[in-house]
Formats: sequence, structure tokens, C-alpha cells
Amino acid sequence: MTQPVVSFFYEFASTYSYPAAMRVDEAAKAAGVRVAWRPFLLGPIFADAGLTTSPFNLNRAKGDYMWRDLQRVTGALGLALTRPDPFPQNTLLAARMATALPDDGRRADFSRAVYRAEFGEGKAISDPQVLAALADRLGLGGAALLVQAGTDTVKQALRASVDEARSHGVFGAPSFVAADGELFWGNDRMEQAFAWAKGEKPGPAAG
Amino acid sequence: MTQPVVSFFYEFASTYSYPAAMRVDEAAKAAGVRVAWRPFLLGPIFADAGLTTSPFNLNRAKGDYMWRDLQRVTGALGLALTRPDPFPQNTLLAARMATALPDDGRRADFSRAVYRAEFGEGKAISDPQVLAALADRLGLGGAALLVQAGTDTVKQALRASVDEARSHGVFGAPSFVAADGELFWGNDRMEQAFAWAKGEKPGPAAG
Repeated sequence: MTQPVVSFFYEFASTYSYPAAMRVDEAAKAAGVRVAWRPFLLGPIFADAGLTTSPFNLNRAKGDYMWRDLQRVTGALGLALTRPDPFPQNTLLAARMATALPDDGRRADFSRAVYRAEFGEGKAISDPQVLAALADRLGLGGAALLVQAGTDTVKQALRASVDEARSHGVFGAPSFVAADGELFWGNDRMEQAFAWAKGEKPGPAAG
Repeated sequence: MTQPVVSFFYEFASTYSYPAAMRVDEAAKAAGVRVAWRPFLLGPIFADAGLTTSPFNLNRAKGDYMWRDLQRVTGALGLALTRPDPFPQNTLLAARMATALPDDGRRADFSRAVYRAEFGEGKAISDPQVLAALADRLGLGGAALLVQAGTDTVKQALRASVDEARSHGVFGAPSFVAADGELFWGNDRMEQAFAWAKGEKPGPAAG
């Protein structure tokens, strides 16, 4: 039997994408599912909805709660949490660099390093030098990766990912999309997405 | 040992409050926690954040996802789901009637009946006659309850609940508040709220 695939759409500015990225490979392995790492940008999709910044910045009480909840979520995973300043970070370059890397483990490694730097250590991941250093440390050639990230091929590939996310109805991150198009939103829906991909549809009997 | 108490803040217009209300007593019993049923209104709290209707109506993609996700969630619990028209319903009277009832099982019974009528059967729960009939069917004296719901005592008690929810940082429903003030938002955070109330704080060791 072919292993079911779930697309993991993540945005580097997205807070809950951080714990999701850190645990998704292990959770997928446990579930017997393959993860396709799909970096994308929420900015154009938020703009569709008339939003100009993170929804968490627009509603003070909701934002305060989110940071507290994220503290609980990352704490339970043993992950450090630092609030990046500014929030959200500009993630265009990071997303292009991740897109430029092949999805054979290198993209996941780089993406986890970006999240750890941003939300674990509070580093400015909009800074090309910070991103290049992260790639260098993984043996991924930061300088060359920066050049590649600026090519039309990579820019267009990232735009295509945003369009694909939009076509699936994605409106936030992280989002998980099964092969049949079923959409799941949020770090806390990861396991349900994997179960769905394996054909374990929820029903009255599962209640 | 005194049984830990968790306040369950629910709004009758809130979609995810429906599955939460239907399962909260059973889940609390299993966890060894007592639930305080706290009907409140989101309208004044949404107004604080500049919102004039349900956030699900303001973002089309998010709203579409929410109804699909709610279908999965209620399906897994064996609950019927019908989209009320209009959505959201005006819930002022229902919240006052629930507030007027004592929290000794009668408030929970009436509240579940309101949710079942609204989201299970698509009934207009803004209609006093619909609400009175629901109360009558439970032996709760619908006509008298309608009168009681209109008293200043009940109106003020509901306003006090909204203020208390706001003071805890509540911005959506369902919300769960532990005795120490810790806030959890969403049907899918219910179990974490119960664990917190019992002193099971998440930490690196729990990851």
C-alpha cells in the first residue's frame, strides 16, 4: 500500500506553526503518514480577507491568550519560547529559501532551524545574514541558497504554493491538507489530519 | 479533598459551544472535576474588539472551514448539525433564561436543549415561544421562566457574567476558566482545562 501523504502548509510568521513544525515529522512517522513540507505566505491570503496584520495583533484579548496558550503548548513539548520583535516578522525571504530546498529532509531541517531561531531565540529571521548562517550551520550553503531564493523559478514556485493553499481553502497556519483535499487547521488538528489521510473518517461510531 | 471547579463560559450563538455543552458534564465526571455552567454574551466582548458580527461571517474561507470542521466534530460525537438561519442567532433571551435557572442540573438541561434545537434542528432560538416550549418539555415552567428572565435581577446577573468573562480575558466561546484564573479557549481545550484544574500543569516532562 502506498503511504498516505499529508501536505503541511506552514508560514514562518505563524506562532502555532512553530510547535507544529517541531513535532510533525515524529508524529507522522508514528501515524505511518508521509509529510510534504509546503512553505507558503499568509500575507496575500490575509489580504483577501481584508487583514493587514496578524489577527492576533488586531484583537488584544485574543493575542494575549494566544501567547499564553503557546507558552503552555511549547512548554509541554520542552521548546523554548521568546516573542519575536517585531511580530509578525517579514518571512518572504525565509519562505523563498525553504522553497528552494528539496523536500528530502533539507527543507524540514532548515525550516525547523528558522522556527527555533525566531520563536525559540527571538532572532530577526527577516535578516538575510541570520538566515544564511542557519543554512550554513546545516551544511546547506547559505550564500548560494540566498542567490537561489532570488531566482524567478523560486519566486514563482512560492507564488504557486500560495495559490494552491488558497485553492484548498487555507486561511491560516499551520494547515494540513489530505490527498482528497480535506483541510485541517491548527497544530491541534495534526493527528486528525493524519487519521483522515489513512481513511479513518470520524463518524457517530467514533464518538 | 475539594473537587476542582472549572467555569464553562458558553454563548448560545457559538458553534463550538454546541459540542462542548453536549459533552462537558460527561468529560468533567470522567476527569473528577465539577463544572460551573456560565452562560454569557459575546456581543459586548466582540464590540470591545471592534467586531459587529461573528468572526466566521467576516472571513469567508474561515467560515467555510468552521462549518466543515464542526460537521466532523459533531459527527464524531453522533450529534446532528443544521446551520441556523440567520447565523448568528440573537441569544439574549436564551442567555437570560439560562441565567435565571439554578446551576443544579436544570441550567445545563435547558442549555443543552437550546443547543440541540438551534444547531441540531435549526430552530429559531431567538423566539420566546420556542424557548418556552423547550423549558416546558423539561418541566421547567416556560411561561414563568420567561417572566423571570425579564427581571432586573436576572438582567444584572447576566451583565455581571459578561463582565466576569471579560475580566478573565475571555474573547470567544466556549471558554474554560480554572479557579486560579487560567483561561482555555475552545471545545478542544476542555480536557487541558480539566487537567490544569487538577494541578496537572504541562511542562517539559509532559512533552
